[in-house]
Parts: sequence; structure tokens; C-alpha cells
Amino acid sequence: MTNSTRTAPDASCAAPSLIALDWGTTSLRAYLFDAHGALLDTRSRAAGVMHVPAGGARAFDVVFEEACGDWLDRAPGVPVLAAGMVGSAQGWREAPYVQVPAGADALVAGLVTVTTSRGTTVSIVPGVIATGELPDVMRGEETQIFGALANDPMLDADRSGVLIGLPGTHAKWAWVKDGLIERFQTFMTGELFAALRDHTILGRTMRASASPDRAAFARGVAVARGAQRAGLLATIFSTRTLGLTDRLAPDAQGDYLSGLLIGHELNALDAMLAERGVALANQPLLLIGDDGLCARYVDALSVFGCTHARVVAQATERGLWWIASRAGLVRADGEPVCADQRID
Amino acid sequence: MTNSTRTAPDASCAAPSLIALDWGTTSLRAYLFDAHGALLDTRSRAAGVMHVPAGGARAFDVVFEEACGDWLDRAPGVPVLAAGMVGSAQGWREAPYVQVPAGADALVAGLVTVTTSRGTTVSIVPGVIATGELPDVMRGEETQIFGALANDPMLDADRSGVLIGLPGTHAKWAWVKDGLIERFQTFMTGELFAALRDHTILGRTMRASASPDRAAFARGVAVARGAQRAGLLATIFSTRTLGLTDRLAPDAQGDYLSGLLIGHELNALDAMLAERGVALANQPLLLIGDDGLCARYVDALSVFGCTHARVVAQATERGLWWIASRAGLVRADGEPVCADQRID
Repeated sequence: MTNSTRTAPDASCAAPSLIALDWGTTSLRAYLFDAHGALLDTRSRAAGVMHVPAGGARAFDVVFEEACGDWLDRAPGVPVLAAGMVGSAQGWREAPYVQVPAGADALVAGLVTVTTSRGTTVSIVPGVIATGELPDVMRGEETQIFGALANDPMLDADRSGVLIGLPGTHAKWAWVKDGLIERFQTFMTGELFAALRDHTILGRTMRASASPDRAAFARGVAVARGAQRAGLLATIFSTRTLGLTDRLAPDAQGDYLSGLLIGHELNALDAMLAERGVALANQPLLLIGDDGLCARYVDALSVFGCTHARVVAQATERGLWWIASRAGLVRADGEPVCADQRID
Repeated sequence: MTNSTRTAPDASCAAPSLIALDWGTTSLRAYLFDAHGALLDTRSRAAGVMHVPAGGARAFDVVFEEACGDWLDRAPGVPVLAAGMVGSAQGWREAPYVQVPAGADALVAGLVTVTTSRGTTVSIVPGVIATGELPDVMRGEETQIFGALANDPMLDADRSGVLIGLPGTHAKWAWVKDGLIERFQTFMTGELFAALRDHTILGRTMRASASPDRAAFARGVAVARGAQRAGLLATIFSTRTLGLTDRLAPDAQGDYLSGLLIGHELNALDAMLAERGVALANQPLLLIGDDGLCARYVDALSVFGCTHARVVAQATERGLWWIASRAGLVRADGEPVCADQRID
């Protein structure tokens, strides 16, 4: 597995076989794969679903052409697979959610297609919904989850299930077993942090720090862990009062608050696992997301006794390739021709 | 006790004896009392501490003159007492916090004074601080708390302590016993609600409702109560997902979220009381604050089995008068001349 994007140098491998799109709320990332799952090219646009001009399918078509038209010129007829908010009611075409427990078959069966102005067929991966008293939804994360699990020999051997965390604006935690997303929970941790920092009194005494203050972050996590029952509403004000009493420097307050929120998220996760008789410390656990944010979660998890969290790279592109393979959009070869270029 | 401000009609009572100021972050409220604690006049200005132009004491002096200059012309030498953020480091003059357990004697001993350009002495009530691992502070609420307790025959008889809730931007819950504020806790409930509504995805699907939707509010409270261990981060996203699944109308989402947050606040309060062996349902409980907000808390408390919460009106002006009396700024008469005008 590689963290960087590489371009296959061998012309025999360079025939594009798939364009894959990770098209979320705020950005569009596009991947061009060769026939063996190696990345030929990637690009990113700020044209997330919320930024696509009003105008329905035509507007998405224009953005897609702008981003990937040259790839389509080079390989007419190449299949296209997209995941994320592009399949929401506000997206290009709605791909109705599939219910948990959800596996590859359900995602493939739930693919919807849209045909572009030049005649290209774009398949869109459905999101996943958990109904019940409090419903929960994901779009895009299901693809990352299967990308993290695809070709992971450690997890193939593990039949007891795995916990997957996807930190971010709307952090998700999913329980996956036997190839099925069994349940999941969304935590608005990232968006809440930004709202508290930018739009409440807590931000007024904060000063940006040159680099993450890991001690302040760990302190926030520990305070949250010690205040499981008191909860978030009762603890966040301490960001200010510790500052007022000269016990938390202005440039440490942001990381302290980040630790508080992530600590409360892990409190909730711990409690949910405990209800099922599982300890966070013993649970196989993968993290998917931004490197810096995943590093914070690794630190926070260690405060909860979980020291074996593993960060998975390239889960998105791996997941898109894997779903395309399962859907028959690309041929799942037994042996790759360019082994060193495969994403594994 | 009356909810409205009345002006004493009897000239024999009309000699001003005290100007009292409730000078907080966002507004200034001024009260003119006669010699017996009856209100002669009140007024309100948007000139909260955060709106007073930079310029230190002189700027506060100007605002005070604008608001109360005619009262001072009418009664030169009248004493002035102020409470709230006016005594903070960003205020007119800093009145250092007094420590819990804090009673009237400590507040009176902690008064600081500032002399205005016309020579008037303004006494400023100190705030209260609870130190410890997580410090907590109040400024202004201590005055409201003693105002709620002053002359309350029910509470004079109660030696077991009383729980006082002050809903708002930064809601406070205080435990008061034998005339002392023993401990208190700040919850950023109001400010968090505003930040979530105005600056996160939750607000995007909300539509204002013509009147409070009590059923949606109660539903939010009940959901929070059932998710004590999962906590706030795990439940607020349901505001969106219930909307997405057509189970919560756009104009009910604001009240539902309000119920969720207040429910989580009461979860925390319930847990804190339980640690001391006290049940929320059995605790004598007063509420101080905006009528509409207090009504929400009465509803929410009933979901927690507490049906005896009592809303106290005019706690601020009663508290200012009471502290002025204790400080000897006004004479605490045995018998009021104008009994019907007394605030009790």
C-alpha cells in the first residue's frame, strides 16, 4: 500500500479501465485506474455537491466534464463509478439508501445510473441507513469501509467483527462483521468543534498554536473521560474557566477543546460497546481519514486503553475499485500485471 | 410578588434611595428604588459590557450617565449598586471573585467601588468562583440567587438546601443551603443551541415555527433522557435524520433540538445529584430567567419526574435591593410604608 499517488510508468498497464469519483459535500476527488487497480492519475476540485450551481443533472454533468473530460476523451466508454453525497437528494441522481446490515451485494444492487451529455454511464453507490427510533445515515463512508476491509489479511481472519472509525465533520463509527455493516453511529464532533471555536465565547480567548499541543489535547480527553456522566454541556465551559484562572494558555485552548469533544465521543462509543459486552480496549479497530485527525484519535483511544488502533490509507480509492469489481464494471483479475502499482 | 414594573403613586414613597444596575454582557438594566424597596422606574439599554466602546472606565461612565443621569440629577448622592459582567476584567472595575461557599457577608465584603465623573460612588458586586480541577464562575447570577431566596417563607423553613436553575446562554445550576451558594455548574446550553442552529447543517432544514412546538420539545427531552450514556454528540444528528426520513417536520426541528440539549443538561444535573444521593424529583427547585425559557425547563423537568419547579420573578431587582440592604447602602426598614409596592 502506498500513501502517495503514483502514475504507472509501464504503457502496457496504462490503459484506463475506471474513473472513480469521491463526490462529497465540499469537494470532488477523481481517480483514474488502469486495468489492474493501479492509479494512473488523480485530481481534486472544490466543486462539492453544495457548490454545484443549481440546475439539476446538467450542472453536475458540466462539473464532471470539466474535471474528467480529458480522461473520457482518452478512453471513451470507460466505466464511471461515484460515491458520496452525489447520490443524495441534492446530488446528481438520488441513490436510495440500503438498510443495515449492508454488504457488497446490497450496494451493487442499489447502484443507480445517470447518462451524461456525451453518453457516458455513471454508476452511483447508494448510502446506508439504519432505521429505528433514531435513524442514522452515511453516504461515501460505506465505500471507505469496504475499501479498508478489502484485501486486509488480518481482518479476513477475524470473524468476530471490527470497529471502524471515520473521524471528521460528521464522524462515524461502524461495526462490521462477516462483510456486513451491522450498525453505525454518527457524531457531529468536527462540525461542533468548528461551531464552538468560531461562533461561541470559547473561541474568543483562543489563539492558534503553531503545532498541535498534544498535552493539552490529552488533558481534554482525560477530563472528558472523567466526566462521562456530566457530559459535554457541563465540561466545555472549562475551556474558558481554565483560561480565566491562568491554568490553560490561549494557544492550548483549541487542542484542549478538541480533546474534550473527541473524549466525549469515545465515552459514548465506550458506553455503546459496553452495552454489548465489548471493551473498547480489546476491539479490533481501524481508522480512516485525514492523517492529522487520525493521529488525534490514536492518542485519544490510548487514553481509553486502546493502543492497537490502525490507520488505513487510501480507503476511498480502494473501496471504489472494490465496488467496481464486485459490480462487474472492471474485471477482477487473478494476477495483476503491474503488481507494484496495485493499491494494496 | 408582581411580574410587572410598577411606579409608586404615593409621593411620600417616591424619594429615590437606590439606583441598581444589572449590567451584563449584552445589556444594561437600571432600576430606581424608593426607600422601601418599591420600584420607581426601570429602563434598559443595549449597552452591555461587550458593546461599551473601548476606553476603560471613562466609557462606562458615559454609558451610565446616558442611562441614569436624570435619576442622579433628581437625587444627588443616591447610592448605586451594580452586578454582572460590569465587575469582570473587561468591565468598569474588576471585583475579584469570592469563593464558594459564598453568602451575603462575602459578597458585601467583596464589593468594590468606582467613582464617576460627577462624584457618584458605584459599588460593584463580586462574582463567585468554584475552584477545583474544573473551575466555574458566575457574575450576576449570585445576585439573582439571593434575590430568589430573599423573603421566601417557604425556603426560610427549608434547611435541607435548594436547587436553583438559571436557564440561558450559559445556564447555571446552583445548590444553596443555609444562605450559602455551596456549588454550581455552568452548562453552555443556550449558546450551543444558537451555534448549532445558525452555524451547522442542523439549521439548514429547520423552519421557524409560529409558536413553540411543545410536543417536539418533549420528544427531544425524552430522547436525550433515554440516551444518557450515548450523550449529546451521538443524538443531535437525529434532528437531521428524523427530518430526512420524514419523521420530524422542518418547523418542529428547532424545538426538538432545544429539547435534546435541555434534556442532556438535565441528564447531567440528575447524575450530579445522584452522586450526592439526591433525586431530582424530590429536590426543592426554583427557576430564574426568561418566562418562555423557564416554561421549557418546567416541561423538561416534568419528564424527569420533577413537577414542583417554581419560577421566581424579579429575582434580579430583589437581589440587588437585598445586597444593598445588607451592605448598608439602603436602610432595611422593619415595616414598609408602601407595602403594596414592595417587591415581594
